[in-house]
Amino acid sequence: MKTQEMLSSHPRKSQLYMKKLTDCISECIACADTCNICADACLGEEKPQMLVKCVGLDLNCADICQTTARVLARQAGMDMQAVRLQVQACAAICATCATECQQHAEMHRHCRICMDACRSCEDKCRQLLSGL
Amino acid sequence: MKTQEMLSSHPRKSQLYMKKLTDCISECIACADTCNICADACLGEEKPQMLVKCVGLDLNCADICQTTARVLARQAGMDMQAVRLQVQACAAICATCATECQQHAEMHRHCRICMDACRSCEDKCRQLLSGL
Amino acid sequence: MKTQEMLSSHPRKSQLYMKKLTDCISECIACADTCNICADACLGEEKPQMLVKCVGLDLNCADICQTTARVLARQAGMDMQAVRLQVQACAAICATCATECQQHAEMHRHCRICMDACRSCEDKCRQLLSGL
Amino acid sequence: MKTQEMLSSHPRKSQLYMKKLTDCISECIACADTCNICADACLGEEKPQMLVKCVGLDLNCADICQTTARVLARQAGMDMQAVRLQVQACAAICATCATECQQHAEMHRHCRICMDACRSCEDKCRQLLSGL
Repeated sequence: MKTQEMLSSHPRKSQLYMKKLTDCISECIACADTCNICADACLGEEKPQMLVKCVGLDLNCADICQTTARVLARQAGMDMQAVRLQVQACAAICATCATECQQHAEMHRHCRICMDACRSCEDKCRQLLSGL
Repeated sequence: MKTQEMLSSHPRKSQLYMKKLTDCISECIACADTCNICADACLGEEKPQMLVKCVGLDLNCADICQTTARVLARQAGMDMQAVRLQVQACAAICATCATECQQHAEMHRHCRICMDACRSCEDKCRQLLSGL
Repeated sequence: MKTQEMLSSHPRKSQLYMKKLTDCISECIACADTCNICADACLGEEKPQMLVKCVGLDLNCADICQTTARVLARQAGMDMQAVRLQVQACAAICATCATECQQHAEMHRHCRICMDACRSCEDKCRQLLSGL
Repeated sequence: MKTQEMLSSHPRKSQLYMKKLTDCISECIACADTCNICADACLGEEKPQMLVKCVGLDLNCADICQTTARVLARQAGMDMQAVRLQVQACAAICATCATECQQHAEMHRHCRICMDACRSCEDKCRQLLSGL
């Protein structure tokens, strides 16, 4: 992805610290992709009925991460209060999704990878929040 | 839209108060639609350079409302802390977008309609939050 | 929803026939909402393993309908070839999702409502395509 | 991103050729990110009124690429006809957005990067289509 290159070619400097912002956007996008595939992989398992909660959390995490990435990347109309709450919502759903995926991490490799993606995304969200 | 009919045909009862939930989802979806069109209508005005902030807020509001509607409708993997923060983020961006649209409401009818949609959505979000 | 009012307050007249355009956008948005809830309702049924294909089609239909609605509403950067293909993709996924939901329509009311929403959306997509 | 690792941990083998599928999903996600930032960067330029068409195409391209990536990654409920049309719509909007960005590529570095991202995404879409 060209997130960093794009942000540095932007005519306006962000109010947010560039390195933390870039990392957070990148992790949100990667986490959304991973959660989207994890939801589908869970549905493809032999006993998807054991993974219903995981599917639901994956879908929520994918949607929230995707929107968080888009909102963070926009300087026109950036509203710091809404951004802060959106990034907090993202950190919260990532934490919960990681905890759920951990339950299945030994059985399903996609859940283990997804757990890592969620934890990494939560971490980058919290680092960004610490500077707001 | 069939939001209410769909939620009442759902096999599991929501933890959230049904009337407030249905209203909030419906307003989020309507507000996302309105903001998406307002952004494009602003771009189509004679002097779009006067409306850059409005376009950016419209885009953020559309994305956040859309994700909020999706997340609220899902009972599988509902995480109350993330939901609360997501609805708070939604109320915040709606409030800011309404205030911005108000600046242009006399000049542009799409901004006046959008202002109303954002205020109504913020209101339904806050009513839902008051019950959480 | 204020789709019609918003489009008629837009400073530029659409190349597309307004009534068909408004109907198509409205149905896409309603269908996306319905499919999103149907996916979650299927996951909440006693035997979700019987409904895996339905969940997947619902999710695809929700995403495609949502994007189709957004793209149709935008006059800035409207690319007729891409729009036509996007609306065709929307009609196709709606048809397939309706057929799948029909299999479960007697058992699950959410699938019956979703089948109707998909058929209605496919119909509005094809009516719009007939004028392109 | 962990797209490849996730797809290879999926319990079901895709009907689509794995290498082409992974490449196409990855490029769609990268292109959506780039287009989203390009739209905002255009709005931040001194004369955004010269870039209205570019903003609109960027927004359409971002939405279509994002949905295409999600749909391609899902095996539950994969409908080959809808997938083919969706990937064709994606290739079409990428081609048009690249042509528009090219007009501004000498003036704005974000448009040059975005042009490359769109061309690369179109290319991966066409390679995937050639195998369907």
